[in-house]
Amino acid sequence: MIEMPAEIALAAGKIEQANTPEAVLTITTPAGKQRTFRHGLTDVSATVNTVLVDLAKMDVLADPDDVTGVGHRVVAGGEEFSAPTRVDERVIDDVRGLSEYAPLHNPIEADYMGAFMHRLPKTPMVAVFDTAFHQTMPPVNFLYSIPISYYKKFGARRYGAHGTSHDFAAHEAAKYLGIPLEDLRMISIHLGVGSSATAVQAGHSLDTSMGFTPLAGLTMGTRSGDIDPSLVAYLAKKTDKTFDQMIKILNDHSGMLGLTGFSQDFREIDKAASLGNERAAMAEQIFVNSVVRYIGAYTAEMHGLDVIVFTGSVGEHIGYIRHRILDRVAFMGIAENPAKMAIQGTGMLTMPESKIKAMVVTTNEEVMIARDVMAIVAHRAKN
Amino acid sequence: MIEMPAEIALAAGKIEQANTPEAVLTITTPAGKQRTFRHGLTDVSATVNTVLVDLAKMDVLADPDDVTGVGHRVVAGGEEFSAPTRVDERVIDDVRGLSEYAPLHNPIEADYMGAFMHRLPKTPMVAVFDTAFHQTMPPVNFLYSIPISYYKKFGARRYGAHGTSHDFAAHEAAKYLGIPLEDLRMISIHLGVGSSATAVQAGHSLDTSMGFTPLAGLTMGTRSGDIDPSLVAYLAKKTDKTFDQMIKILNDHSGMLGLTGFSQDFREIDKAASLGNERAAMAEQIFVNSVVRYIGAYTAEMHGLDVIVFTGSVGEHIGYIRHRILDRVAFMGIAENPAKMAIQGTGMLTMPESKIKAMVVTTNEEVMIARDVMAIVAHRAKN
Repeated sequence: MIEMPAEIALAAGKIEQANTPEAVLTITTPAGKQRTFRHGLTDVSATVNTVLVDLAKMDVLADPDDVTGVGHRVVAGGEEFSAPTRVDERVIDDVRGLSEYAPLHNPIEADYMGAFMHRLPKTPMVAVFDTAFHQTMPPVNFLYSIPISYYKKFGARRYGAHGTSHDFAAHEAAKYLGIPLEDLRMISIHLGVGSSATAVQAGHSLDTSMGFTPLAGLTMGTRSGDIDPSLVAYLAKKTDKTFDQMIKILNDHSGMLGLTGFSQDFREIDKAASLGNERAAMAEQIFVNSVVRYIGAYTAEMHGLDVIVFTGSVGEHIGYIRHRILDRVAFMGIAENPAKMAIQGTGMLTMPESKIKAMVVTTNEEVMIARDVMAIVAHRAKN
Repeated sequence: MIEMPAEIALAAGKIEQANTPEAVLTITTPAGKQRTFRHGLTDVSATVNTVLVDLAKMDVLADPDDVTGVGHRVVAGGEEFSAPTRVDERVIDDVRGLSEYAPLHNPIEADYMGAFMHRLPKTPMVAVFDTAFHQTMPPVNFLYSIPISYYKKFGARRYGAHGTSHDFAAHEAAKYLGIPLEDLRMISIHLGVGSSATAVQAGHSLDTSMGFTPLAGLTMGTRSGDIDPSLVAYLAKKTDKTFDQMIKILNDHSGMLGLTGFSQDFREIDKAASLGNERAAMAEQIFVNSVVRYIGAYTAEMHGLDVIVFTGSVGEHIGYIRHRILDRVAFMGIAENPAKMAIQGTGMLTMPESKIKAMVVTTNEEVMIARDVMAIVAHRAKN
């Protein structure tokens, strides 16, 4: 919950183990108030009601009708949604219709939109799509080299994800540097549970590492990133698995977890590596290398590079990962500032004279979504 | 058939439509003699006999026992074969055992080794593996970010291919430039029916674009190259296909053929593009872009780049494709020589002052294989 246009956080909530009987909802305020719920969270309408009632009890929200707008983050927007969109029944149907592009996310997001719309019928709802920022990608980058009918009939193309985060990071970086977005060739690197790199040219997504789904691209916590597509069939046969089971393994049991065999957490992995665990050290190298490959590829695609932006939970906080990446591409003209390697939020990582800049931006997808909501509400008010 | 050590071609043969009833065997000599066979080519032993008898009739080979050695190109050598290997029954079994890594190639190659060994029992046979050159890749580049057990149990890793060609191109380029291989960071780009890029550092394969199979990497004539692995499962479901059918489509009906809908031939595609066919123009852009991405990625992996080497039927002969690639990476410090864009064989593409060199090497995998055969025969003679 954010006060706009001041962009002041009033409360934050999260559900852990969502959509399971073990689900836990926690709501916290900046002043330190905290409330936790463990029951009734499998029912979407009940959960929405719990949140609104509780915000009142925490003195954050006197009347639910005071909410100016509700922003809904949606993972997959396909080609239908290239901008934030006012939610109505048709939009909810469309989001549900895109479930094959994000089976774990879109159906639930559609449910929540419906529940909020039902509970707050007078309040504008805005859907903000993780794929929208990437809709500026040209066909040369979004088409795969497969029969073109698969794109036309089944929407088989690169959509990318993390769009809200890359968009925010690019805007904040330009603002911080005092250089117009139009004049910048950036690589925005979101490293977290999921990870992706985006080539941002003049403020627009030119190319991105995630693909048809968020499985492709960089090595991630539990996702494989890029692999030879033949392996999907080969391993499914070898291990007697179905398509769905194989894709689930590539999503949930691969990446850093699959390589180390014990963790997807970078701090745990680094600790193990420093104690001599060779698989942990190798997993770190593979992760770093996957990022280095994309930095090189996107620099070539943009005919050069002005700034690398790190964001996401790992990108913002784990200095040695950033350093290992930057060290590998130092030859391009990146002069790290040794005093800044460990910074934990928005700031520069390079020396003032560095030809290519590198920096951290603390991502704030919630504020970005709130801005999108306000833009739609203001637009409506004017018309 | 090559006279060694002079490396003079005495005869060349090829089978078109191999392993089908329409198979055609053609044998030619540099003097212009040519003989064609259309019958009995589905039987491997009969084909071997036809070749040997015919070479005698063409006055190229008086007695089959005069053959010093026979080199057998093998596509997939797994981790077992990292160098040319004297063929015996065990090697034939091992090559057959690796059929899952190259189902269209290894079984037939094993058959031919057996047939030649039976027909020329006193002549040394040498297997030369397309994957062997890449066995120097470090684990950081050959491991995928999947459960490590899949590598240990099922050999699921990057093997690459076109190794003999990349190895030859790297050696020839260094010789042509007069610079020791040890001092060079090269990207060898083999463009042909299949295409691959290899980062060659100090003469060794550091990374390569083909993967577990030759399906991965660059956009090819009929192969998809890199795609989101999720698409294999998604499209198989959408089109009601099995794993094997889907992988076959990605191998045989994708790439330039899938994108254009009418051809995998670069000259045909370019003609169509110049007449306004937008899909043809887009396919060319996608192909060029896939090469540009790998040039960027491998430059980053090697901390810089000294020379780009084009080889293979397209790389050696189609100047406008090379030019479009080099033009995109000119910012790296590549100054093309406009007078040399159309060269058709080994030579420089860049100006003498170009920071990064680009050149063409006419690949000669047959000579490379003959050298490997002679090395094994010589080694045997000494021991």
